[in-house]
Amino acid sequence: MTLIVLNFKTYRESTGSEALRLATICEDISRDYSVQMVVAPQVADIQTISKAVKIPVYAQHVDGVGYGGFTGHVTAASLKAAGAAGSLINHSERRLELAKIDASITACRQAGIKTIVCTNNVATTSAAASLEPDYVAVEPPELIGSGIPVSKADPDVVIKSVQAVKRIAPDVGVLCGAGITHGEDLRAALELGSVGVLLASGIIKAKDQRKALEDLVTGTRK
Amino acid sequence: MTLIVLNFKTYRESTGSEALRLATICEDISRDYSVQMVVAPQVADIQTISKAVKIPVYAQHVDGVGYGGFTGHVTAASLKAAGAAGSLINHSERRLELAKIDASITACRQAGIKTIVCTNNVATTSAAASLEPDYVAVEPPELIGSGIPVSKADPDVVIKSVQAVKRIAPDVGVLCGAGITHGEDLRAALELGSVGVLLASGIIKAKDQRKALEDLVTGTRK
Amino acid sequence: MTLIVLNFKTYRESTGSEALRLATICEDISRDYSVQMVVAPQVADIQTISKAVKIPVYAQHVDGVGYGGFTGHVTAASLKAAGAAGSLINHSERRLELAKIDASITACRQAGIKTIVCTNNVATTSAAASLEPDYVAVEPPELIGSGIPVSKADPDVVIKSVQAVKRIAPDVGVLCGAGITHGEDLRAALELGSVGVLLASGIIKAKDQRKALEDLVTGTRK
Amino acid sequence: MTLIVLNFKTYRESTGSEALRLATICEDISRDYSVQMVVAPQVADIQTISKAVKIPVYAQHVDGVGYGGFTGHVTAASLKAAGAAGSLINHSERRLELAKIDASITACRQAGIKTIVCTNNVATTSAAASLEPDYVAVEPPELIGSGIPVSKADPDVVIKSVQAVKRIAPDVGVLCGAGITHGEDLRAALELGSVGVLLASGIIKAKDQRKALEDLVTGTRK
Repeated sequence: MTLIVLNFKTYRESTGSEALRLATICEDISRDYSVQMVVAPQVADIQTISKAVKIPVYAQHVDGVGYGGFTGHVTAASLKAAGAAGSLINHSERRLELAKIDASITACRQAGIKTIVCTNNVATTSAAASLEPDYVAVEPPELIGSGIPVSKADPDVVIKSVQAVKRIAPDVGVLCGAGITHGEDLRAALELGSVGVLLASGIIKAKDQRKALEDLVTGTRK
Repeated sequence: MTLIVLNFKTYRESTGSEALRLATICEDISRDYSVQMVVAPQVADIQTISKAVKIPVYAQHVDGVGYGGFTGHVTAASLKAAGAAGSLINHSERRLELAKIDASITACRQAGIKTIVCTNNVATTSAAASLEPDYVAVEPPELIGSGIPVSKADPDVVIKSVQAVKRIAPDVGVLCGAGITHGEDLRAALELGSVGVLLASGIIKAKDQRKALEDLVTGTRK
Repeated sequence: MTLIVLNFKTYRESTGSEALRLATICEDISRDYSVQMVVAPQVADIQTISKAVKIPVYAQHVDGVGYGGFTGHVTAASLKAAGAAGSLINHSERRLELAKIDASITACRQAGIKTIVCTNNVATTSAAASLEPDYVAVEPPELIGSGIPVSKADPDVVIKSVQAVKRIAPDVGVLCGAGITHGEDLRAALELGSVGVLLASGIIKAKDQRKALEDLVTGTRK
Repeated sequence: MTLIVLNFKTYRESTGSEALRLATICEDISRDYSVQMVVAPQVADIQTISKAVKIPVYAQHVDGVGYGGFTGHVTAASLKAAGAAGSLINHSERRLELAKIDASITACRQAGIKTIVCTNNVATTSAAASLEPDYVAVEPPELIGSGIPVSKADPDVVIKSVQAVKRIAPDVGVLCGAGITHGEDLRAALELGSVGVLLASGIIKAKDQRKALEDLVTGTRK
């Protein structure tokens, strides 16, 4: 089933009660259109949302530290306890050191939650894949928030990422992101070999978020 | 009223359901002993705790960013929406760049939540005070988690911090931390001019957290 | 004497042999126009330049660590040994944690070299001044590299920075930067109470760097 | 030929004139014992050392930025201009974000200098290898500076690193580090499949650095 991950970032339209409202729309879409939607709200919103919806709720970031003296860190254990089923790691707006990406993946694995490592090109996608997260999501930074879909602007980065991951760690799924908004963008992304997409502003800043999602999921493989 | 801030860090004994249990004990102590207790759990635990207890709930960290494309950041707006009344900033386990401390304070002020900036010596206490947070909490890093109370091991750092803050920004309250566990530590801290303490492992890792807190609050000024 | 600090950044026009050439021009200007010029090249260029010119050579960044296991850090001791007379600290392109700014200043003081802490507004200028570096250089980030001089676009930030520093640490000199290029910009900066300026692209990217500097120094107080 | 990389860190015994002295010893050893020695002094010392000795001089860190507004960064171009032939990247004392490791390797490749990416375990070694630096150097952090050689304490991390790199990027050489001091440590490291070692305190803090190096190189493969 096509995987659609909606990164709520810290937009006003996806914070607090707005986050809950948007997550409910995503749950509707997930059920009505047979796609697997994942919502990634801010950490402070995870508890309420994970109680309210049945689709998986991911964090946007997790630190690779465990129980102990780690003030201000986001632990996999606390995410799990709050109902999260996974986390983005190393998003371009929250880059991590290589050793910390590895530690975050390990911490999530131990807590029993999934991981999506974000990357910026084929080389870092290969690197991330060798760490064996559940997914890598390749997003050329210059296209993030641009409205220009990576699947059109730079199909090669997706194709080569898929090839590299297949060679290095074939169990890792490849998502692509950056500029994805419409059904045709999603369709193109899937045709390039990705198993789904990571998206944000195209949906969250849309006048009608539900309609934007309905447009998007028309791109799902039949 | 004496201010006692309990930093939950990411200890097992203060994560998830344990965090809720500990916050309830703190609420009891606050009411029974007429002290102002503040609990600072992990972000993922703030919603549940702030609904369950009446004492203020603070975050352990907040980023100085607003609504927008800031994946993986903790915004003051999201903390406020989750019921937080304030945040620690720049704890020694989560240091921030100077300009970001300033931005975090500004973001909290705009969201209407309080700020405690942690510092490591008299110079950085002075610096933090010029940014006019609600509180600064001076904690010599070598004493954090040591069990050796700053109020005994290095009373000068507290006395001089109080003097410096009085000169630079007299409305800012001075807390002290690091190694504070017992009633006598608290009493010494208050006698040195602080308005309260920031503490963590001494209480959280105690065999009996309630008893540890009861011992601590015997140090409150009568 | 008016202090003019030229930050070489990592521009092609101020790297390697180009850095040496530019430093020599600055030395000429310093002598011919009775201003105190300071050049801040990349670390790798400090040795050659400090042997070749008599004006002070500063680093663009220094870490607050001493002798020991600190791979990849820039120590004050190594700068001093290479002939540097000071260092910028916390430039907007190389921000540091508050405690590290303090540690860098302390390390430079121990090594006997000068410090200029860069700041972005009045609040952080006050904070930096309480750490008692030799200078603070206030640069509103939105004006850096803009060609719009801070002394015109935002004179208030300079005036209030000067006032704040006078109150908190009167021995600290205030420089201003961002967008300074011409003599009139420098004159305005001095009239607002600063003791000099920190500049970069306006000179370095000029077609004729010597002429650009000659234009600039016409703004020196007579 | 066996590769021996000596990381000077910021030790007093390898800063300034001491760095030059030590580099000269390394040059002697390199010539007298037919090993390939590389010295990695602090950036400020590179110019003098690279003029004085014929063995390759590496930096301890390089930023993945080019010409431009990057105050306080270490560019590959400036290292090259100062005579450096390569750089360590991502040492455990100077960890970098994944995307920045990639950018640093790319910048060095463009400047025509070599790269050694440091890693902490088999997973991050695999990740680093997919970025195709010239070398990876695996160093379990808990053994760095311990005097306990990785080749004895944890031979598996070396063996598996060599295997992983062979599979992912066979042109990348594997070094190992942490705790290496004596000839037998080096011999064991080579027998495990590494092409050389990265070392520091074992030599630098030795009473007689030359003797320590002479002892070390007895471990070279005949």
